Amino acid sequence: MSIQYILEIVGTFAFAISGALAVKDTEHPDWFAATFTAFISSIGGGTLRDVLLGSYPLVWISDITILYAILAGVLATFVFYRQLMHLRRTLFLFDTFGIALFTIVGTEKALSLGVRPEIAAIMGMFSAVMGGVIRDTLTNEIPIIYRKEVYATPCLAGAVAYLVLDYLGAERNTAFIAASALIIVIRILAVKYQWRIPDFFR
Amino acid sequence: MSIQYILEIVGTFAFAISGALAVKDTEHPDWFAATFTAFISSIGGGTLRDVLLGSYPLVWISDITILYAILAGVLATFVFYRQLMHLRRTLFLFDTFGIALFTIVGTEKALSLGVRPEIAAIMGMFSAVMGGVIRDTLTNEIPIIYRKEVYATPCLAGAVAYLVLDYLGAERNTAFIAASALIIVIRILAVKYQWRIPDFFR
Amino acid sequence: MSIQYILEIVGTFAFAISGALAVKDTEHPDWFAATFTAFISSIGGGTLRDVLLGSYPLVWISDITILYAILAGVLATFVFYRQLMHLRRTLFLFDTFGIALFTIVGTEKALSLGVRPEIAAIMGMFSAVMGGVIRDTLTNEIPIIYRKEVYATPCLAGAVAYLVLDYLGAERNTAFIAASALIIVIRILAVKYQWRIPDFFR
Repeated sequence: MSIQYILEIVGTFAFAISGALAVKDTEHPDWFAATFTAFISSIGGGTLRDVLLGSYPLVWISDITILYAILAGVLATFVFYRQLMHLRRTLFLFDTFGIALFTIVGTEKALSLGVRPEIAAIMGMFSAVMGGVIRDTLTNEIPIIYRKEVYATPCLAGAVAYLVLDYLGAERNTAFIAASALIIVIRILAVKYQWRIPDFFR
Repeated sequence: MSIQYILEIVGTFAFAISGALAVKDTEHPDWFAATFTAFISSIGGGTLRDVLLGSYPLVWISDITILYAILAGVLATFVFYRQLMHLRRTLFLFDTFGIALFTIVGTEKALSLGVRPEIAAIMGMFSAVMGGVIRDTLTNEIPIIYRKEVYATPCLAGAVAYLVLDYLGAERNTAFIAASALIIVIRILAVKYQWRIPDFFR
Repeated sequence: MSIQYILEIVGTFAFAISGALAVKDTEHPDWFAATFTAFISSIGGGTLRDVLLGSYPLVWISDITILYAILAGVLATFVFYRQLMHLRRTLFLFDTFGIALFTIVGTEKALSLGVRPEIAAIMGMFSAVMGGVIRDTLTNEIPIIYRKEVYATPCLAGAVAYLVLDYLGAERNTAFIAASALIIVIRILAVKYQWRIPDFFR
């Protein structure tokens, strides 16, 4: 549990960095906009999941560490901004690690609240991607799920993999690591080989 | 009750079709975008209503049939896309039927949770139109309620009609059918004769 | 308590006016759009706060006076529209008074529900500004917090001031008035001297 908690804080920190960087292209990228956007990006997905499930108190309201992890991410972005710009590949890996972790944590949480597996998979995917969707909507960007990049589908695939492993009786840590790894691998391959989701309209 | 349940599933199916078709004009109308948008369009209004009322569990979380009705709508859109494009009038009737049904079901649900009639009417209208509003916001469209079309006001009128009939002691099925019919008639007349809501600024 | 309640109703009325005026620049500023936008602007921030805190029933659902205060604001906007346009300074003061009041009321409510002060400050600020953010998102405007104007930071400063005074044992009414006044003064000075939040990216 302790290792998972540390990973969640690191995931929050990583999401805060990508959120703060996202204000770069807005009209007035000031400190407030950067902090607000980092906050929304980090807690948006998990908050939506918990509000939909009626699971209170929300994690970031009961555990103040999350807020400070976000502020640390904002500060790190401010200090290391120039270096971060040269580390686009590292940032991509951070984000990919973040969505993989958030997907499986979200899927597990939903399952533990007694919902059906189909719903748990949706909640896992929402935990990972909806923070970014809310951020994009607020900054008047096309939400990431509507861009050509493969983003939410690896999360869905990983959530389903976790559910199948869980159903087959796999040990929980094994399922957690295998499913997260699957998300990371699919996403990296998707970007490297420019995979596309098939067109809906022929 | 059984007939109403079947109608709700049909309404969900109809909303999923209109949601999937709505991604046609986005930049990357792939399978994920179509399914996600169909899902948001179908469950958005009722979800907002239930979150505002604190009514848990959400309907689509406790009843998995709704999810499968949405997926069926997406699949039907994919298979019958060309035919659907020639059936714009049929689609309009489906959507009109959907908002009429969702308005009255939403009004009834809010009433049954003990809120005042004014709030129940707002909740009924939200059930019908907010799924589309959330969808339009995510796809960077002007939300339907801000376009010149008469869309939400027939729902409000129908909700008020239902509340008046209920207050006057009308039998529930009679009130349900009469109020739904009123919404359908107003909307059809509004489109046919290009009715407009009066301008707010003279 | 009675005076605070009257102030809250006045704040709601003021927010409804600024919401109704905000549809002026949309494509079809009709009665429905004006009323809907006034409603969202007025109740959006407090609703988000209460949904995040899981505090039910929502204030405007249990107290119907709020809905009528909003409708009165819409009506007043319609009747006195020409005069209001000449009173931009008065309107600005109304809005500033509104966000100051909503910030402290929101901070207090969150505190009373047992959250930590950091979270209470965020909830106070959300109460004041998120109604406008939701309104701007729906009308496809850049949300006010992303424009160059200093808007949310005075609210945060006032919330922190309230929490410090409360911590120091100040009498509640004193803390309320002092913190609200601080928000009003900062905002007026910020507009008058065109203060800017420092840029995040150098």
